Amino acid sequence: MLYPGLTALDFVGPLQVISALQEFGLGFEAVTVAAAREPLATDSPVSVTASHTFEQVPAPYGLIVPGGGAPTFAALADEQLTGYVRQAARSAKVVASVCTGSLILGSAGLLEGREAVTHWAAMPMLRAFGATPVSRRWVADGHVLTAAGVAAGIDMALHLAAELVGEDAARMIQAAIDYDPQPPLGPIDWDRVDRASMESSIKSMAEKGLADQPELLARLTTAGGAQSVSP
Amino acid sequence: MLYPGLTALDFVGPLQVISALQEFGLGFEAVTVAAAREPLATDSPVSVTASHTFEQVPAPYGLIVPGGGAPTFAALADEQLTGYVRQAARSAKVVASVCTGSLILGSAGLLEGREAVTHWAAMPMLRAFGATPVSRRWVADGHVLTAAGVAAGIDMALHLAAELVGEDAARMIQAAIDYDPQPPLGPIDWDRVDRASMESSIKSMAEKGLADQPELLARLTTAGGAQSVSP
Repeated sequence: MLYPGLTALDFVGPLQVISALQEFGLGFEAVTVAAAREPLATDSPVSVTASHTFEQVPAPYGLIVPGGGAPTFAALADEQLTGYVRQAARSAKVVASVCTGSLILGSAGLLEGREAVTHWAAMPMLRAFGATPVSRRWVADGHVLTAAGVAAGIDMALHLAAELVGEDAARMIQAAIDYDPQPPLGPIDWDRVDRASMESSIKSMAEKGLADQPELLARLTTAGGAQSVSP
Repeated sequence: MLYPGLTALDFVGPLQVISALQEFGLGFEAVTVAAAREPLATDSPVSVTASHTFEQVPAPYGLIVPGGGAPTFAALADEQLTGYVRQAARSAKVVASVCTGSLILGSAGLLEGREAVTHWAAMPMLRAFGATPVSRRWVADGHVLTAAGVAAGIDMALHLAAELVGEDAARMIQAAIDYDPQPPLGPIDWDRVDRASMESSIKSMAEKGLADQPELLARLTTAGGAQSVSP
């Protein structure tokens, strides 16, 4: 699912994996859906145009909802978006999210009573939607699958591919996209991450995106806002 | 640099990292450049529109050239594209590529006598441009920086960020995009990868993309084509 201002890698990571299901003839058709087939700004200097409209794909087999900054918080109150998520979730075998996309699932009412994950700096906000934040790379609870921040969408999508078409095919996709990560500075060293600064930055994004939604903003920033969740 | 049919993750991975240099106020402006600001198809079901034209950015500080399948091979013979790469390379402090994007650098004459890497299944093709294939996640030779397949662009871009703005800032970007990879099936198990099948698939892409360029096609598929390069 695409919407204005989303984080580019949030959707392209999983899309590259899921598109391969089609490319390798594994029985799935990958599409991107948006309110209209017009170029949408992203958080990066590139615009993206979906292959299909919401109307053209009323009942997808699966739906992946990407996240982002202020525009994603604005999306929480966009009834066309949350309406589509709710509608798709009725028949979908899997509803997934990447990064703060899980807050959109929450706003659509899909996280009530479920375990879920989001970007590490937004974790307490999940409580505003009745979810229990769980610090894992991805979290599956029933047919709802949530991934941690941005790049975690790639890990989640490979997990999803393995579930859908088996580990051998998922391994083939992993090799095709050469996903053999070697972060030059090693894994994230959480002791060196300025978490307070990023948490404050996410709060500012929420304030910006939800300037005209004071109630929802208050729920997000106070619900579990006082309490961090350790990565 | 964007062009029709490129692999989406090849450019979005590095773009997400490099855009953060701007977002965090680190003194760089990130842009995407293409022949025109019109939606371009990618290898995935999404179209992308560049933020700038080639004419608007005649002398970038750095240039990253993504790869892809048949359309990337077609791009090798696109004189507007290779001309832009050559022009940008004259003043750029770094010219980089992801995946088969290195073949575009080669076609622009930038790999002669250099060490370079590309997608593992296309490695022998580098020899057609006078380059020495080196199996690493990324290879720096002078101001030319090449990355292995698709997802390797993220690792390369973090390396580049560390070079440009220092390790602390690169760590901050890594944490912001939550790049703490946990491939669900572990690293690529090269003993289980059907390399012959993927190499044959890349050869088919070359034949398709270069159907009207028999000489270049012959150089690519015979130069080092008989000889694989071990990952």
